Amino acid sequence: MKSILDYETVSLIDEDDALEIIDQTKLPGSIEIIRLHTGEEIWKAIYLLQVRGAPAIGVTAGFGLYVLMKHSKAESYEEFMKELKEKSDYLNSSRPTAVNLSWALKRMEAHVEKIHAEAGKFDRDALITEMRDESERIKAEDIEVCRRIGEYGLSLIKDGDGILTHCNAGQLATCKYGTATAPMYLAHEKGMNIKVYCDETRPLLQGARLTAFELHSAGIDTTLLCDNMSASLMKSGAINAIFVGCDRVAANGDAANKIGTSVVATVAKRYGIPFYVCAPTSTIDINTKVGDDINIEQRKAEEVTEMWYKERMAPEGVKVYNPAFDVTDNELITGIVTEYGVLRAPYTESIAALNLGAKRK
Amino acid sequence: MKSILDYETVSLIDEDDALEIIDQTKLPGSIEIIRLHTGEEIWKAIYLLQVRGAPAIGVTAGFGLYVLMKHSKAESYEEFMKELKEKSDYLNSSRPTAVNLSWALKRMEAHVEKIHAEAGKFDRDALITEMRDESERIKAEDIEVCRRIGEYGLSLIKDGDGILTHCNAGQLATCKYGTATAPMYLAHEKGMNIKVYCDETRPLLQGARLTAFELHSAGIDTTLLCDNMSASLMKSGAINAIFVGCDRVAANGDAANKIGTSVVATVAKRYGIPFYVCAPTSTIDINTKVGDDINIEQRKAEEVTEMWYKERMAPEGVKVYNPAFDVTDNELITGIVTEYGVLRAPYTESIAALNLGAKRK
Repeated sequence: MKSILDYETVSLIDEDDALEIIDQTKLPGSIEIIRLHTGEEIWKAIYLLQVRGAPAIGVTAGFGLYVLMKHSKAESYEEFMKELKEKSDYLNSSRPTAVNLSWALKRMEAHVEKIHAEAGKFDRDALITEMRDESERIKAEDIEVCRRIGEYGLSLIKDGDGILTHCNAGQLATCKYGTATAPMYLAHEKGMNIKVYCDETRPLLQGARLTAFELHSAGIDTTLLCDNMSASLMKSGAINAIFVGCDRVAANGDAANKIGTSVVATVAKRYGIPFYVCAPTSTIDINTKVGDDINIEQRKAEEVTEMWYKERMAPEGVKVYNPAFDVTDNELITGIVTEYGVLRAPYTESIAALNLGAKRK
Repeated sequence: MKSILDYETVSLIDEDDALEIIDQTKLPGSIEIIRLHTGEEIWKAIYLLQVRGAPAIGVTAGFGLYVLMKHSKAESYEEFMKELKEKSDYLNSSRPTAVNLSWALKRMEAHVEKIHAEAGKFDRDALITEMRDESERIKAEDIEVCRRIGEYGLSLIKDGDGILTHCNAGQLATCKYGTATAPMYLAHEKGMNIKVYCDETRPLLQGARLTAFELHSAGIDTTLLCDNMSASLMKSGAINAIFVGCDRVAANGDAANKIGTSVVATVAKRYGIPFYVCAPTSTIDINTKVGDDINIEQRKAEEVTEMWYKERMAPEGVKVYNPAFDVTDNELITGIVTEYGVLRAPYTESIAALNLGAKRK
């Protein structure tokens, strides 16, 4: 079996006017590489979760917008921008709640506007070339951020460690290394012996289907467990550190991530095991003061009651509690690993010291 | 839909020389009542988990041994006992690790020995009648123990409470009321409004398939959740008390129960929610000093990796951690609800005060 590190989650195949992705709906059964040429193909790939994970979706959108504009016949800037916005809106409608999707599309548009303003005249080929370069920069930045998170995270583990992770904050959610998995890949590259334990992550099993797949394929010693086995495992002494990703970090360090993350953090606290949240600073939301302000999506009951045996495994009519995320209180978090270093409590201060407002201007 | 309380998990149908059970392998899809006449049918029902739960298996074994001996043609006590032991050994081989199975069979045998010794002569019909009465007593005692646990548990909840449970310590595991569910059924019978939340309980989903089914069928407001949603739910304020069953309680109050129980207890402690273990005193093992002395069964990987979609949901070759139980430390347990009352910490003292050694003689 080839390692996941031999593949790219999303690539631009410029000579074929296409994007190339691993079809994640086919994992872990088979590794199918597919090319996306048309707007409809790209839209469907995002909508059907053939590509998923906020950073990977952002990169897909950037490449996608470039590919769709590459053969534009626009004769004026206005015509070019009208076409670009139509295609951008279309791609953006594939998963309206994914922040990185709209962020990447807006970034592409803003870059075109800037280049056009600097040039002072309409140069279609130059704008198209700049779109290609900007989309490649989005990808390169994602890889660089993950690599740096991996290096800072690596400083927190040692040879022989057992590491637990939850859900998939892996390479499949980004372009390379992942966030929570980045320290694991770097440790493995350096020849360190680590054992990684993956929570299966009900109801959608991203841990079993994706994280266990990608780490195992990379040759890392990987063990799968059900989410409710964490206390037994931690009590046994097998776990030295926990690394998870996150969807949004509030200004006080409270971190929203896949449902169950705060259960892991609570159990880790009881057994004195350090709990690290890996967060590109793009996920830190300084306008959200505390975790309770983060709106948690409730998802459909059938994810819990029906995705089993192809028949219901719960009685008809029973109610279902199915939040997609939970919030881990900052006091349960040992450190937040960003591309600028490991933040420590008090997080209100360490996050403010990042000066993200200025960095984002 | 009829309520689960309209059914009996296991009954003796004496006029038909049969046992009647709910085929639990068909739940929650359909309620199928089946009759077991032959030794092979009874053995298979236990082996295939058509009837499961330690108390229910014990009652099945008692009834089963009676039915198999009912038409004995033995001409002497020795012949009768040889036949009885053969049938007992055969039933006992269906699930060799279930304590109640061998306990009930030994109790039946000991009762026959006692009656014969008292009579001083071989009276086959009298022994057979006594076997019927003893097997009915095993069932009646199970119902009485569960009812008393229910009454003591009921004193710990109030109208409007939200109650969380894990796995199935329900009527389907006993003859009536269950253990952890007994306070819920009694509260519902008294017209109290309670909301019960059931952990689905991976990997075998007893919470989704059995507990959610039986409570919902009884008209109790029932909500299903994945095991990793407990912290989110408890933090939301929805849960006032937690009731779980147990497989073995050590002399110091450490309690082994279905994997994930100690995760629930740890999270409950963080949110200040009382955590009760419902334990017939038959599950208290005064010869096991602490929970760490309890041997935990590791089960096969396929339960975690393959019982999904009828295809693997984890990569081939990945390792799996799959313990069937975990141990909840006594300091996480608010009370142990037995048929003699609610035990409180320090458990070493409250358990010793039960004087179980004397009660069991």
